[in-house]
Amino acid sequence: MTRLKRFIEAHSPIVDRELDRLLSPRPGEPGSIRRAMRYSVFAGGKRLRPVLVFAAARACGKPSSSVAGAAAALEMIHAYSLIHDDLPAMDDDDLRRGKPTNHKVFGEAMAILAGDGLLTLAFEALALNARRAGLDAKSACELVRVVSEAAGTRGMVGGQVADIEAEGLLGRKKSRAALAARLRYIHERKTAALITASLDAGAILAKASLRQRNALRLYGRALGLAFQVADDVLDVVGDKRKLGKKGSDRRNKKLTYASLCGLAAARGEARRLVARAHAHLRPFGSGAQVLHELADYVVERDR
Amino acid sequence: MTRLKRFIEAHSPIVDRELDRLLSPRPGEPGSIRRAMRYSVFAGGKRLRPVLVFAAARACGKPSSSVAGAAAALEMIHAYSLIHDDLPAMDDDDLRRGKPTNHKVFGEAMAILAGDGLLTLAFEALALNARRAGLDAKSACELVRVVSEAAGTRGMVGGQVADIEAEGLLGRKKSRAALAARLRYIHERKTAALITASLDAGAILAKASLRQRNALRLYGRALGLAFQVADDVLDVVGDKRKLGKKGSDRRNKKLTYASLCGLAAARGEARRLVARAHAHLRPFGSGAQVLHELADYVVERDR
Repeated sequence: MTRLKRFIEAHSPIVDRELDRLLSPRPGEPGSIRRAMRYSVFAGGKRLRPVLVFAAARACGKPSSSVAGAAAALEMIHAYSLIHDDLPAMDDDDLRRGKPTNHKVFGEAMAILAGDGLLTLAFEALALNARRAGLDAKSACELVRVVSEAAGTRGMVGGQVADIEAEGLLGRKKSRAALAARLRYIHERKTAALITASLDAGAILAKASLRQRNALRLYGRALGLAFQVADDVLDVVGDKRKLGKKGSDRRNKKLTYASLCGLAAARGEARRLVARAHAHLRPFGSGAQVLHELADYVVERDR
Repeated sequence: MTRLKRFIEAHSPIVDRELDRLLSPRPGEPGSIRRAMRYSVFAGGKRLRPVLVFAAARACGKPSSSVAGAAAALEMIHAYSLIHDDLPAMDDDDLRRGKPTNHKVFGEAMAILAGDGLLTLAFEALALNARRAGLDAKSACELVRVVSEAAGTRGMVGGQVADIEAEGLLGRKKSRAALAARLRYIHERKTAALITASLDAGAILAKASLRQRNALRLYGRALGLAFQVADDVLDVVGDKRKLGKKGSDRRNKKLTYASLCGLAAARGEARRLVARAHAHLRPFGSGAQVLHELADYVVERDR
């Protein structure tokens, strides 16, 4: 996996620089909200979504510098979703990546607003990137639409709603097949949607063909589902210090693939999904090497 | 004010139809979140921001049908901000427009997510409107940028932060001039920014000149500030049934223009701001009649 490692090491500074620029103090803005936003954005995340934006652009033959704004936008949307998910009214988590969650440091009101601010700024970053990349109007609007749809009620927001509504489902009389279908519904929205949109955003900015975009979207869906199943496994067996959280999914008795089908089945499902992800990359040849390695990484990581 | 009334009566159905379309059940989306979003969007708001989008397009010579998506987007952003502002961690309001607030009906988690969903959908609606209106790439990106900036940390989100941080300022030793400046800072962001963006969105979609856009932005700033000062006055003297809320600003000892300078001074300030708003409309001649009447309405309304 050295190629992936090199790619991440080369690209983390690019997205961090862009995030730093976007989140620099601006005239006429209260300093407190900027600090709250930066706290979560620079809390040591894996930068998976930015890496996907960069790698998709690379697979379609475009340099990373041309998609840095979108990479930052996708990371800000991810960060906002974690801040809101951690709130007392939602998952009520005190720790995230080993650090106190946003509302623990800045208070609930500021955490809600920091999330709102990040989501809003993400669309500004997308629009500016579209402009800088010289997209035509149709593609620029498509970029905003794709990300909005993935972040909204048919995507991430809808997934979080379904996740909340599924709490306690395990206790009720439902067939395992019905519960597995429900779980898939949640994973598709809560995780796979934004991962897919990250790839598509990179592809749109790289002026990819529809065929390339479709292949990357199918890869993204499989990768996102694999990522979530692997996450469920890690939540059970992972080293808590490495994960930096307290296994709150178990605490809240949430529906997870591991609790539903057992660890062995969950691991098998993650491997099957990763194989499918690899298959969708065939049209890209060697340009997609980083995406291939990413798919392997998702099931092999320990945090 | 009959022309304004006719304009509102003609345009409310247009924005309501667009909102109904945007907020119709979509495949693959949990029904509960849609219900929570619709509840606040169709809670009897004044539709001030959509009317401003329509009226700005009219002043620049374009029909209302060409800006319906942006009108709906601005209303959804307004609705999201009210849902989040009413949350227990923020203003903790039980009533809004005489009805239970979103979190009172759907619970806190769903209210947070309904707000997130509306903000996200607003950008999708903007992008689709830009595309339908045949904007070039530069103008389409500018449309998203203008609305994002007004809704974000330099605008509405920043205003809400400053508002929260100003609580209790009245009790401390600050000069009246310093407090008045602070209040202006809050009003500019919390109210005037999105009102200005509504006008600018209408203008951008109408392919207005930079000179027209600037005039409308200056009008919007004066209108927005007048609106907020008038709101402060209403919060003190208004009929609670008509307002549909319990004067929570007073309950929370918030800084308001009325509490700071007295009712008479607040009324005078609102009138001065409205006069300034009228002056900025001069370049538009009779095309801006509705905007003129709107400025008068802001200080004459009783709810």
